[in-house]
Amino acid sequence: MPAIDLNSDLGESYGAWRMGDDAAMLAVVSSANIACGFHAGDPAGIYRTVKAAADRGVVIGAHVSYPDRVGFGRRDLDVTSEELIGDVIYQIGALKGLAAAAGTTARYVKPHGALYNRIAHDPKQGQAVIAAIKAIDPSLVLMGLANAPILDLAQKSGLKTVAEAFADRAYTPKGELVSRREAGAVLHDTQKIADRMVQLAREGTLEAIDGSIIKIEAQSICVHGDSPGAVAIAETIAKRFAAEGIAVSSFVPTV
Amino acid sequence: MPAIDLNSDLGESYGAWRMGDDAAMLAVVSSANIACGFHAGDPAGIYRTVKAAADRGVVIGAHVSYPDRVGFGRRDLDVTSEELIGDVIYQIGALKGLAAAAGTTARYVKPHGALYNRIAHDPKQGQAVIAAIKAIDPSLVLMGLANAPILDLAQKSGLKTVAEAFADRAYTPKGELVSRREAGAVLHDTQKIADRMVQLAREGTLEAIDGSIIKIEAQSICVHGDSPGAVAIAETIAKRFAAEGIAVSSFVPTV
Amino acid sequence: MPAIDLNSDLGESYGAWRMGDDAAMLAVVSSANIACGFHAGDPAGIYRTVKAAADRGVVIGAHVSYPDRVGFGRRDLDVTSEELIGDVIYQIGALKGLAAAAGTTARYVKPHGALYNRIAHDPKQGQAVIAAIKAIDPSLVLMGLANAPILDLAQKSGLKTVAEAFADRAYTPKGELVSRREAGAVLHDTQKIADRMVQLAREGTLEAIDGSIIKIEAQSICVHGDSPGAVAIAETIAKRFAAEGIAVSSFVPTV
Amino acid sequence: MPAIDLNSDLGESYGAWRMGDDAAMLAVVSSANIACGFHAGDPAGIYRTVKAAADRGVVIGAHVSYPDRVGFGRRDLDVTSEELIGDVIYQIGALKGLAAAAGTTARYVKPHGALYNRIAHDPKQGQAVIAAIKAIDPSLVLMGLANAPILDLAQKSGLKTVAEAFADRAYTPKGELVSRREAGAVLHDTQKIADRMVQLAREGTLEAIDGSIIKIEAQSICVHGDSPGAVAIAETIAKRFAAEGIAVSSFVPTV
Repeated sequence: MPAIDLNSDLGESYGAWRMGDDAAMLAVVSSANIACGFHAGDPAGIYRTVKAAADRGVVIGAHVSYPDRVGFGRRDLDVTSEELIGDVIYQIGALKGLAAAAGTTARYVKPHGALYNRIAHDPKQGQAVIAAIKAIDPSLVLMGLANAPILDLAQKSGLKTVAEAFADRAYTPKGELVSRREAGAVLHDTQKIADRMVQLAREGTLEAIDGSIIKIEAQSICVHGDSPGAVAIAETIAKRFAAEGIAVSSFVPTV
Repeated sequence: MPAIDLNSDLGESYGAWRMGDDAAMLAVVSSANIACGFHAGDPAGIYRTVKAAADRGVVIGAHVSYPDRVGFGRRDLDVTSEELIGDVIYQIGALKGLAAAAGTTARYVKPHGALYNRIAHDPKQGQAVIAAIKAIDPSLVLMGLANAPILDLAQKSGLKTVAEAFADRAYTPKGELVSRREAGAVLHDTQKIADRMVQLAREGTLEAIDGSIIKIEAQSICVHGDSPGAVAIAETIAKRFAAEGIAVSSFVPTV
Repeated sequence: MPAIDLNSDLGESYGAWRMGDDAAMLAVVSSANIACGFHAGDPAGIYRTVKAAADRGVVIGAHVSYPDRVGFGRRDLDVTSEELIGDVIYQIGALKGLAAAAGTTARYVKPHGALYNRIAHDPKQGQAVIAAIKAIDPSLVLMGLANAPILDLAQKSGLKTVAEAFADRAYTPKGELVSRREAGAVLHDTQKIADRMVQLAREGTLEAIDGSIIKIEAQSICVHGDSPGAVAIAETIAKRFAAEGIAVSSFVPTV
Repeated sequence: MPAIDLNSDLGESYGAWRMGDDAAMLAVVSSANIACGFHAGDPAGIYRTVKAAADRGVVIGAHVSYPDRVGFGRRDLDVTSEELIGDVIYQIGALKGLAAAAGTTARYVKPHGALYNRIAHDPKQGQAVIAAIKAIDPSLVLMGLANAPILDLAQKSGLKTVAEAFADRAYTPKGELVSRREAGAVLHDTQKIADRMVQLAREGTLEAIDGSIIKIEAQSICVHGDSPGAVAIAETIAKRFAAEGIAVSSFVPTV
């Protein structure tokens, strides 16, 4: 029986401000990328989400970010390696603390937003993130963009990795994400998205934006995206997977 | 040979702003209360201080605070228990993470500033801090004001505690700190301060502001205070202790 | 024809987080209390709301707060007068700047949340807010709780004031707000709320929680509250006012 | 009698953290670039510095920054034009408010750190800064790097400008700053710095790092730099100017 991980960004409320529907998502996903306070998440709110994930048996990971709350971590920031290492250890530590208090354990790290995009291809910041993870807990898995150089870099440094594909994003013929600035970059048809994810889970392939078939080795599917209908997309994929006999279960990292 | 702990507030620089002389203090103290980012300390700077403490063999503790950087954690803030529990776990977790990365371990928790003063006598916020510590790591010791109710409260809840006295502060005949608003509350004569600390370490007593002799059961002496000459005070006490055969060594907590 | 001001808290989104429906509220109210960045509001978002208010001809005021974004300004903070004066001038200045850029002018100041409640009865912080307003622009009007001492204090200091009542709150027989901790403190029946506000606008009276009739001298009605159905309440009041021949128009301050 | 403006970055303390010696600098300079809270400066502290500048008759300007306090505004941040316009208006407004309360007026705007360097050559962010200044107060002067394109851009947009040279920096033969990454970029010999500034004030020329003589049209000299001895440099220049009959007086902007 084929199996794949579904992950989503959670814990992104902040104080009086709500974002997303953590309870609904936790009913669907097998991995929860938990905000660590630098782009989103206040401690009490993160703690509530971590406890809810623990109750659901959902694996949690640290969704670490640049320190840019007003920009939601989506703006490139020219940090030094020393700053980035400190920031990443601090955030992972905070989440590990909240996880321990909730009786669970953070198992992976997924950089967020601009940091995610930057390290996909920038070895300097990538190495800083890798160094931070190795320093605090080398058993943590790095979740990154399928086909991006960061995954090789991490593996060569001795980290386990998990590659993810994006449910609601179009891909280039080279297996990269189509830039959001281009037409057709974000998919909205939930049934078509579910079809694509079934194909990905079964065959490890997707149709690129030019109609060609590309290989995407991904052990996890991100069902968050910035789509307003994120919950609906996640639920549709989960139902289709159930109907097609595809298990949703936490990733087995690549060593 | 009598022995007592010396502790000081460290890691309180922030970004481009310097505060205190961590290297000089680490040469003197046996315990370092490390800022956790809420009143002071940026991750990279905290990490440097934690590594320096580890190199020196100085025990580290989490100096947790209300979230009030511009007020340096010195302003009373009316937080809910849920918020406080989250904030305390988050900060302890962050410091534990940086400690792990530096090859050391946080052994205690000392609330900072307004939170320190508040929980000394407020059982509601005190219980929240205790609950947070027990949730993340019940082996952590709570450092608090000698003679204050918080220590009993913590012990009854199953936490180990360590009581501290303040080197540069005057005491009332009841064994409480003289309020800073009153004349004579802060001591500046380093030799007199050293005399007092020798008496405290040897006999467990101090002369109160009215000249009476009071009993202060303290396993640790805080040599930070807000005195500009904090390093000089710490060094003078350390030299005098060496001359008098009083060992400076990390506290043994009260169970 | 009787007339009264309707005011609401706007500009309270922050970065990626939305709060409230500013466009809907601006179609109803005559005064907009605009967040100034300390409890809510990022500069670009505040600017959008200020421009929308200017387009609608809605009068704007500075909704100044303690510096406590994660607590949404709802937590009492023990600031010094010097800090509070600085914080209030800074926030008013920022809003005046955005208002000037949008071709409009801030006409009043309404403290937010915990600061609002604190100064209603605390003359020390109240005087600091008054001093700040007088220093930056003594023509600004202070909006405060009807029947609270702060209004007298401000008038004696030479500031104009406007007293406000809360549409969705119950009142004690003494004309004070029933504490939120007590049952019945917040009203939810929009028709009943509208009935009460018609009576307030026409006769300057309200039925207190014990059934007695109390006098509330208010030139403005706050239709925000923390009710989830704030927009519905505001629209219902506005419709009823239209039907009853009560004009909604910006307050004329008490000198 | 030749005359030139001396400017320095002031108001850069933050809460409990001190930076620089504002009182000493205000005794020397004719223009004070005042931090506006985004990279440094808390409201009460900014207010104190603005009042001190007003007492001294020193002209003040808004030292606006990216929102990056922990990075002291020195890290490039990929903001949108809408965000930057909002941030710049907000900061100028806040400073104008504090200036009005202190009985003075902000006369110019000097972007800080990474924003300063970015707009020197990036027309997109440059235009956003210009648009912000024009929106809030088109009589404000933009202070920028001598010989950089931003000054032409601003003038073409209708803003007055003032060009500044850096006392403690080496220049390339093209009249640009030598990058800090290169040897010799920062000058430390105060007498040599003073010699150079006399030449600049008298003849509008400087010796470049290769020994050639270059033309620098500057109406102001920045005596802050990141040199630890900033006050000493400023005082040495001021004394030498007095001895050489060069007046230190606020700039006359280029229209």
